[in-house]
Amino acid sequence: MAGIRRCMLFSFLLFYVTECNSRLKKYNARPAVLATSGSPWPLPRNMTTTQVQYQVDADNFKFMLNTGTPSCDIIVKAFARYKVIAFGPRSETLKFRPNFRRRPNKENTVNQLTVRYVQPCDQYLSLESDESYTLVVTGNTASLTANEVWGALRGLETFSQLILPQGSGMYVINNTVIHDAPRFKHRGVLLDGSRHFLSVLKLKENLEAMAQNKFNVFHWHIVDDQAFPYDSIKFPNMSKLGAYDSNHIYSQADIKDVIEFARLRGIRVVPEFDSPGHTQSWGSSISNLLTKCYKNGSLDGSYGPVNPAEESSYNFLKSFFGEVADVFPDHYIHLGGDEVDFSCWESNPEIMKFMQSMGFGKDYAKLEEFYMQKLLNIISGYRKGYLIWQEVIDNGAKVAADTVVEVWKGGYIDELAKVTSLGYKTLLSSCWYLDYISYGSDWRNYYGCDPQNFNGTSAQKALVIGGETCLWGEYVDDTNVISRLWPRASAIAERLWSDESVNSVSAAEGRMEEHRCRMVRRGFDAQPMNGPGFCPVEFP
Amino acid sequence: MAGIRRCMLFSFLLFYVTECNSRLKKYNARPAVLATSGSPWPLPRNMTTTQVQYQVDADNFKFMLNTGTPSCDIIVKAFARYKVIAFGPRSETLKFRPNFRRRPNKENTVNQLTVRYVQPCDQYLSLESDESYTLVVTGNTASLTANEVWGALRGLETFSQLILPQGSGMYVINNTVIHDAPRFKHRGVLLDGSRHFLSVLKLKENLEAMAQNKFNVFHWHIVDDQAFPYDSIKFPNMSKLGAYDSNHIYSQADIKDVIEFARLRGIRVVPEFDSPGHTQSWGSSISNLLTKCYKNGSLDGSYGPVNPAEESSYNFLKSFFGEVADVFPDHYIHLGGDEVDFSCWESNPEIMKFMQSMGFGKDYAKLEEFYMQKLLNIISGYRKGYLIWQEVIDNGAKVAADTVVEVWKGGYIDELAKVTSLGYKTLLSSCWYLDYISYGSDWRNYYGCDPQNFNGTSAQKALVIGGETCLWGEYVDDTNVISRLWPRASAIAERLWSDESVNSVSAAEGRMEEHRCRMVRRGFDAQPMNGPGFCPVEFP
Repeated sequence: MAGIRRCMLFSFLLFYVTECNSRLKKYNARPAVLATSGSPWPLPRNMTTTQVQYQVDADNFKFMLNTGTPSCDIIVKAFARYKVIAFGPRSETLKFRPNFRRRPNKENTVNQLTVRYVQPCDQYLSLESDESYTLVVTGNTASLTANEVWGALRGLETFSQLILPQGSGMYVINNTVIHDAPRFKHRGVLLDGSRHFLSVLKLKENLEAMAQNKFNVFHWHIVDDQAFPYDSIKFPNMSKLGAYDSNHIYSQADIKDVIEFARLRGIRVVPEFDSPGHTQSWGSSISNLLTKCYKNGSLDGSYGPVNPAEESSYNFLKSFFGEVADVFPDHYIHLGGDEVDFSCWESNPEIMKFMQSMGFGKDYAKLEEFYMQKLLNIISGYRKGYLIWQEVIDNGAKVAADTVVEVWKGGYIDELAKVTSLGYKTLLSSCWYLDYISYGSDWRNYYGCDPQNFNGTSAQKALVIGGETCLWGEYVDDTNVISRLWPRASAIAERLWSDESVNSVSAAEGRMEEHRCRMVRRGFDAQPMNGPGFCPVEFP
Repeated sequence: MAGIRRCMLFSFLLFYVTECNSRLKKYNARPAVLATSGSPWPLPRNMTTTQVQYQVDADNFKFMLNTGTPSCDIIVKAFARYKVIAFGPRSETLKFRPNFRRRPNKENTVNQLTVRYVQPCDQYLSLESDESYTLVVTGNTASLTANEVWGALRGLETFSQLILPQGSGMYVINNTVIHDAPRFKHRGVLLDGSRHFLSVLKLKENLEAMAQNKFNVFHWHIVDDQAFPYDSIKFPNMSKLGAYDSNHIYSQADIKDVIEFARLRGIRVVPEFDSPGHTQSWGSSISNLLTKCYKNGSLDGSYGPVNPAEESSYNFLKSFFGEVADVFPDHYIHLGGDEVDFSCWESNPEIMKFMQSMGFGKDYAKLEEFYMQKLLNIISGYRKGYLIWQEVIDNGAKVAADTVVEVWKGGYIDELAKVTSLGYKTLLSSCWYLDYISYGSDWRNYYGCDPQNFNGTSAQKALVIGGETCLWGEYVDDTNVISRLWPRASAIAERLWSDESVNSVSAAEGRMEEHRCRMVRRGFDAQPMNGPGFCPVEFP
């Protein structure tokens, strides 16, 4: 009997191996890059995995909060959300065509993830939040441990990425132990609601994509020269007269909606109201706010940056930013301060007089510094922190010690060194302007850019709190925002989360392929990034 | 009484003008380019329009075939289709927020378009078809006259573009007279189903977009090195072993579906089965088809182009292309012939012997010519015409006089002169490779490229039958094909349809803005092309 059983086993193995091999040979297709399987993105700090696989009981799967872990809406809603993200809407999983039929094994089935964290939930993620977690999948138990609920959120995302669909509604997961925490605390995506309006639906779709890439800051560049879609409570004419039209406005309800959607995903919403430049659209409604420009001694009909010589400007700013401080719960507001064109100021006689009275001579950088410091004081008065673009510092302004300076221009390696040497917290975005598109696999360039790649002390390096990828809206709107941003932004997501040493493009490319197809399977128009190929599940 | 009425009229006018002006001033927004209103794209050959506007009765609108005009499914289905394209699904039009309320005027309401053409419908558009039409909208009658049903199709599209939504379900149309006909008869879009599979749904969405831009050839580059998704009847293993997987296959039913969808829109489907290069995926299933490469005198395991020295190759090609000739109704088949790498042929001893026996010496271009001529004879035997890429001619092959040569490489101005001097019909695609993306308003470059811009006789110029825009699939799939192609391809649509003199980018940019927003309103993800701005109707 033993002999026959051995023979049957051998025959089965022979058949199995031959079948497998011939199936592998069958599709002699040539994707440029072969996708990995079961590799999370971004790569966890510490991950060990074995070949041992467990069934995952999708139909009966439960996310459980450990007794003693303080519940809150964030975790409850995350459990519901990740049930769908991991297993798809159940009717859809039945449509997966089987590519490999595995015989169910009741002994090694994972049907639950136990989640525990220590701290009661904060309402909102902050710069200081702890996003670390430990994830253990062994035997048929899976447990996720964190200090704060934010770590649980990040761990849930990773867990969902470890679950591998096998077709016909079957899922497996490998024996895994992960200890993970982000390298940088500020991992942002900038979207531009002014150059082209982005619908609330698209903003939310993008926030979900961000969460699945562990981005944690939505830098909402909500107004600019071209349009003012922010529907101000105190100054309703700003959008009535400054938006493209009444269909391209973010109402207070919309803003609450976006903030809440982000909050539940552990994403901070940092609004940017850029001044004194980039404010043309403010002038439609706030008379005397913008500087009137002169030519050959008389008004030429055009306007420049905010008029820094008028007390009315600061009265307005104080009132306006009081509202902004209320509407946006994050501790930080981005105040802009970039690309201030001095020529209108230089042309204006009242400003010339003001310069003289202040003893600024002809140094308009001093006038800009004067404006920025008054503005920063206004914001401090509301007990908010602020981010500014690099020019403010470049032009010599002295700003409060806890200012976060965002480096966006060329020559950023030297700039990072300079800004951190002055003691400011710093963000890098220069190498991550995703509005600049080009042919080919450009994610590799983004992947290779490191925010701590400059000459400096470890104290300086520690001042780099992270970075942001910017998708300026000149050529971006609802029609192309998702495919333009994803999965290119994923390269930056990993650069900001994973360890510094995780920088090999060749090691990453198969994982990027897997990650892009994962995003596609989850319903995002994440575009091809690696040359010819395909995703196993890509058409609804 | 007269005085009071005059006063009331004056008050109304004053109010009206003030309201209008203040409304114009209200949105002091700054799109980079302001859209025109009521300008069709592509620009008709001859169009006069006046300020006189008529209401269009959307609810009761009828497309009518004039008595005596032979009906057919093409026109019947077009009538149904254009009812929706012009007026939207009726429930949606009620959602349009009113931006300008016009008082209905029953006297000047257009509620019908009478269509007449002379010739009975051909089943399929051909290179020789007559797409000319005349469109007249005066008083409250609208009439569309053409020689063939294809002109009626083109005229219906133009008519639909003249109908301007006013909000609240109201539409107007200007007094218009149009005489129109295309400058070039072959106006094509190439899509690549091999580097990335494109779903049938996306192909059809794109065919509809093409029809709305008056493109009339879908150049279906359906197979290539990386994958063979074409499900052959005679050689089913070609897709079984050559496709990426079984979910990435074009079945015979799919192909019929695409051809029919195109047919009804007056779009020819020209398949490309490129050889002898670009055939790696063919080798999975057709043994001995591809040349075996040698290194240092022994087989190195890799394969090269189709083996031109084996009679079995031609037996296969004859059988395979017999099927292709049946499956694809268009008179033309694209045979490729580009980028043939001679190195594998050079390494193979059997081929070396063959070269000697044929007296080709070491001139592999002669071997390529030998192959191409045998292939062309096979196709001629099926009474089909063929298109080929330029290399076949560049390498000195002599091909049949009615061959269409597609110029795709750099140096195309000289190449156009050369190919036409040899007497071949010619297509230009070199300057229209839309897979090459870059930041900004690149449609302007595509718009500026003219297929007859070379030194030659008028006989030579007449041999340029049109052009094609190519969207190779290395970085394109369902996630981004529509936004990458549109509205950039619209620039080429106009270049190929409209008069040569319609070449001013500054005159076109406002119309391009209108056209892009029209495509967006009609449901296509046509991306922003002109810098900051917005579309009046853009979110579902």
